[in-house]
Amino acid sequence: MSQNPDIHETHDMIASDMVVGTDVYGAGDEHVGKIERLILEKRGGRVAYAVMSFGGFLGIGHDHYPLPWQKLTYDERLGGYRTDVTREQVEGAPHYSAEEKFDWSADKGRRVQDYYGVW
Amino acid sequence: MSQNPDIHETHDMIASDMVVGTDVYGAGDEHVGKIERLILEKRGGRVAYAVMSFGGFLGIGHDHYPLPWQKLTYDERLGGYRTDVTREQVEGAPHYSAEEKFDWSADKGRRVQDYYGVW
Repeated sequence: MSQNPDIHETHDMIASDMVVGTDVYGAGDEHVGKIERLILEKRGGRVAYAVMSFGGFLGIGHDHYPLPWQKLTYDERLGGYRTDVTREQVEGAPHYSAEEKFDWSADKGRRVQDYYGVW
Repeated sequence: MSQNPDIHETHDMIASDMVVGTDVYGAGDEHVGKIERLILEKRGGRVAYAVMSFGGFLGIGHDHYPLPWQKLTYDERLGGYRTDVTREQVEGAPHYSAEEKFDWSADKGRRVQDYYGVW
């Protein structure tokens, strides 16, 4: 998966650089998106969102779709993440464009959490 | 800090690509190292370790030093992380070489946690 031999994973742990760039699959192996970055809580160090993009090249001219981390499940066999969210749901979700900065305000965060029904 | 206009932070949240590459400072502004990657718990999504390197270029021919995330505190003014660990402590800590894969086994994890006295 990676060119860098010291980037790897074990049963419990995974390096951030193995998560970023990983494809996310939904039901029926539908390709839902690709993880372009993680958004962390500065203090607790918990991953709050995985920001996804889809189509074309990673993060270039793309809209960005924050998905609550709780919606992702690591699939050992796949070596990637699964979700119960569909591509259609993601396309209708709160997102920000390539030209726009997403401010991770409490309010924007709430809109994402509300949309996916995750708290 | 970054060339990419959509990589950013707010009061509470920070993107993983802003954390990676960030310098870590100890007491008296001593440069302790640079964060080269994060190690996440696959399931909970908590950041367990920040892997640090120091000297020369990021991750090229370097040893890698996992530091428990609890030892890092975000410093708004600095736009980076502070720690109460000294450079000398890090140099004496469990680490793995550039040629060696660090297997994030429970046992290796325990050695790191024990060394820094963090659980």
